Amino acid sequence: MASDSTGHIVKSFEQELNRLRALLTEMGGLVESEVALACQAVLQRDVDLAARVVESDPKVDAIEHEVEQFVIRLLALRQPMAQDLRLIVASLKMTGDLERIGDYAANVAKRSLVLEQFSLPFSLTGLAHMSRLVQEHLKMVIDAIGENDADKAVEVWRSDESVDEIYNALFRELITYMMEDPRNITPCTHLLFIAKNLERIGDHATNVAETVYYAVKGEPLQGIRPKGDASPYAVVRAARE
Amino acid sequence: MASDSTGHIVKSFEQELNRLRALLTEMGGLVESEVALACQAVLQRDVDLAARVVESDPKVDAIEHEVEQFVIRLLALRQPMAQDLRLIVASLKMTGDLERIGDYAANVAKRSLVLEQFSLPFSLTGLAHMSRLVQEHLKMVIDAIGENDADKAVEVWRSDESVDEIYNALFRELITYMMEDPRNITPCTHLLFIAKNLERIGDHATNVAETVYYAVKGEPLQGIRPKGDASPYAVVRAARE
Repeated sequence: MASDSTGHIVKSFEQELNRLRALLTEMGGLVESEVALACQAVLQRDVDLAARVVESDPKVDAIEHEVEQFVIRLLALRQPMAQDLRLIVASLKMTGDLERIGDYAANVAKRSLVLEQFSLPFSLTGLAHMSRLVQEHLKMVIDAIGENDADKAVEVWRSDESVDEIYNALFRELITYMMEDPRNITPCTHLLFIAKNLERIGDHATNVAETVYYAVKGEPLQGIRPKGDASPYAVVRAARE
Repeated sequence: MASDSTGHIVKSFEQELNRLRALLTEMGGLVESEVALACQAVLQRDVDLAARVVESDPKVDAIEHEVEQFVIRLLALRQPMAQDLRLIVASLKMTGDLERIGDYAANVAKRSLVLEQFSLPFSLTGLAHMSRLVQEHLKMVIDAIGENDADKAVEVWRSDESVDEIYNALFRELITYMMEDPRNITPCTHLLFIAKNLERIGDHATNVAETVYYAVKGEPLQGIRPKGDASPYAVVRAARE
């Protein structure tokens, strides 16, 4: 806190920091619901939900811009120090990650419109599981922002690996469906990108967790960050090879 | 410039801003060569180049961290205003985008190791074209950072659409190869993700262009940002359907 300021200043500066935190959690809540709607759109073949995601994306960009303007004003007028300064700088990083998460949700929604045109001869259990996990992590990290909770951030950070594991299994599964029947190739290609988008959303949630931790503790999250996406190395051979 | 400071302070503050710009262009140059090496690794089937990309990624993260520390110190000690403050805030956004570009290059490099294990019955002309364009835009936007050149930034911003067009054509082309022969499915899947990574790199170069413009002009780039990636909507039907 800006303890070198007068009581009155401190109070209104704290109000401004709370306003900043409120903007971040509002943005977080918005992308959280975008991700939820996008996943529903895919799993329940619901075109209307997809449209709602694509429509709401400009709102996310608007809040990101508002945060940037607010931060620049805070930096210019308040000359914050120490933890306040870290929170303000961190908020710029977090809005960047949240904005990307919104973009990935919009991309998932768009692809659900294609999937809707295909009958899939297989279930989407793996994808459903992955989307549940990613949404849990996203919710947790947004709570961590609002509550300034470094422990919650560490929890999210640790749990990203499980998402990567499901993604790797899903990647191989979808490739085998493509090999079984060329009619699966287009829908499975979009499902591959949908799964990749969810994996990226989990990854950005992990970035936010690292940023929250840094903002609260003033030091980077220790240890090597869990990196479980082995799919870039995945080799699946066709039966006839 | 911090005109309200004494001559001496201004001079050394300017030196610090130049140091910041130098860090950004150093980081930019590093990811630029990562992207170049990753594209070569794919197009020339060169495993050693791929390894070099993956190895150099921690260097990029290190510079990003250095920039953040430097920015926090500048904000705390200098209380910059106006354009200086915008440059400092913008540098945080730019390092975020540059770091992502480095990650995409590493992902391309990893996938080139898989491709190396397959003989491709088709040429990679489209991908080669796309990688040339993306590298041009990346080089241009990094120059724009170093030269504080808003016009160059606008040029990059405008040219992103051409990358998206090639990507869309490539997306459909690769899907047809998969349909022709299941043995193409695994390599083409990785090529799809490589192409997507290049498209994302172009997109992040466009983000950087927007940030450079804002930092120099103090207002957002006007007009709707070119958005040419229609591939999420792409439907390619198998012959037997």
